[in-house]
Amino acid sequence: METIEKITKVLKKYDKFLITSHINPEGDSLGSQLAMAELLKCLGKKFVIFDNDKVPERYRFLPGINLIRNDIKDENEKFDAAIVLDCPNLKRVGRVREAVKKTETVINIDHHVSNEKFGDLNWVEEGASSAGEMVYKLYKSLNCKITKTVALYLYIAILTDTGSFNYSNTSGATHEIISELLGYGIEPYDVSQSIYENKTLGEVKLLAKALSDLKVLASGKVACLVVRKDLFRKTKTKPTACENFVNFARSVKGVNVAVFFREDINKKNVFHVSFRSTGRVDVNRIASFFGGGGHKNAAGCNVRGSLNEVKKKVLEKVKDAL
Amino acid sequence: METIEKITKVLKKYDKFLITSHINPEGDSLGSQLAMAELLKCLGKKFVIFDNDKVPERYRFLPGINLIRNDIKDENEKFDAAIVLDCPNLKRVGRVREAVKKTETVINIDHHVSNEKFGDLNWVEEGASSAGEMVYKLYKSLNCKITKTVALYLYIAILTDTGSFNYSNTSGATHEIISELLGYGIEPYDVSQSIYENKTLGEVKLLAKALSDLKVLASGKVACLVVRKDLFRKTKTKPTACENFVNFARSVKGVNVAVFFREDINKKNVFHVSFRSTGRVDVNRIASFFGGGGHKNAAGCNVRGSLNEVKKKVLEKVKDAL
Repeated sequence: METIEKITKVLKKYDKFLITSHINPEGDSLGSQLAMAELLKCLGKKFVIFDNDKVPERYRFLPGINLIRNDIKDENEKFDAAIVLDCPNLKRVGRVREAVKKTETVINIDHHVSNEKFGDLNWVEEGASSAGEMVYKLYKSLNCKITKTVALYLYIAILTDTGSFNYSNTSGATHEIISELLGYGIEPYDVSQSIYENKTLGEVKLLAKALSDLKVLASGKVACLVVRKDLFRKTKTKPTACENFVNFARSVKGVNVAVFFREDINKKNVFHVSFRSTGRVDVNRIASFFGGGGHKNAAGCNVRGSLNEVKKKVLEKVKDAL
Repeated sequence: METIEKITKVLKKYDKFLITSHINPEGDSLGSQLAMAELLKCLGKKFVIFDNDKVPERYRFLPGINLIRNDIKDENEKFDAAIVLDCPNLKRVGRVREAVKKTETVINIDHHVSNEKFGDLNWVEEGASSAGEMVYKLYKSLNCKITKTVALYLYIAILTDTGSFNYSNTSGATHEIISELLGYGIEPYDVSQSIYENKTLGEVKLLAKALSDLKVLASGKVACLVVRKDLFRKTKTKPTACENFVNFARSVKGVNVAVFFREDINKKNVFHVSFRSTGRVDVNRIASFFGGGGHKNAAGCNVRGSLNEVKKKVLEKVKDAL
């Protein structure tokens, strides 16, 4: 039997589900979880969405966003099955892990090549643009109605995970789905404004300052950006404002590896390091060396030390990988 | 008879065509012109593409880009018809105007609401995402083969004019066309890298400087950015590097109108002014007042005067429109 059929069977069989996704949620994790919740409603099931982290400000306009909880009221609350979306391994669900492990059946729905198949049912589709695209397929399989709200969830999942349909995970099938979703009344620019054009003046100044200090090294093959914690205070911004900064470093002609160093605002001498690479350079290996991970061309890790120490350690590994 | 049918008749009837588009070419003008040239080839016709300005660096990777000329060798060269693409009025073709006027028939193919219907045949489709989307329809009407190269031209036209499928001109039909175009072998990320991720370090510094001086006024409803000409010299950049700067001003929460003032590098006391608005504010009217034009939510014009004079004149009109 196809995995998707097995999953539809389990969704029909059980009564109460725990829905979760990875730490530091973004469009795909939020959109696919909310769409999954609506799917369970359509099937007449009960559910709780429980995530490790709070929903970032830019996604709070979404209807039903308050369904996403950061705790379970009753620690002994029992679920028949857990549905883990957009998550390559169980470590990435953070403190939701224990609740997931207590369920009878773990359903793993993901599109990451690095997925560790940690579920009792593992539906991993590397060719899918996003977990949202996979949930869309479940709607079709189960013949559940796609409402305007569901279309919005799925649209956001796909939009954000494909970098506005620019990344290589975008296929003809992706655009066909989007064409259908727009038919339910989604206004692309309204969504785009809510997610991408809702910055504070401070956030723009934060970007300006980071970009003004952009450095290229290794004969132009490496670009690096730094944000120190005092800058968040000065610009009245939060670290989530830096989400796509590393892409600006990658956008420089000839750059093979872009590195973004963001100082932790709470812990002393800790830097969050994001990597982006083009072509053959595998930044997942670099990030893994420092205890992090990700994909071949996009990864991250935390590194301890002063900025100079961290830069030296990390950039050495980057130069080795070139 | 439908205008598109009239146009297909004229394309079949005549033998030699002049193809042109607006000054300061971008993805849609370049893509739609090149796709139109390939359409004429398919019909066995002769053509010359003649534009006022040089092709910006980021589009020079396109196959056949050298077909776009900035002069006509023989001033007396005769064309049966001119095809003017993505151009609201004849002033916007710049110094190609005379050559256009000498032709027997002017075919005006455009999607701007402000189009002045200057042609003998005027096909103006405000609902189309781009001139590229309209040329796609001509391929279908004339039953011409869409090759991988043509698909690339049309893809770029639509991608760039919809802001990566984010703007309100993106419809379900647009995504269906894109789905078909990807089927001809277009790799979205390769295109995206060529166009959007091919910046010089100077271009990033130019953006950083512009953003660091971003101002909001009118209780946060207006955001404005300025780039003076000396900054191009300091960062070794060209004015085309500013193509999407105005979008950064628009991305600030609460901003209804974003205005970008770019000083002309050749003419003294001339500023190119770009507008973006959200919702009901009609910047086409503001730009038209100063002799420019565009769409309701995206328009531009040139204004004479010192920076202070130009800012005062323009921002007064903007505040009136709020």
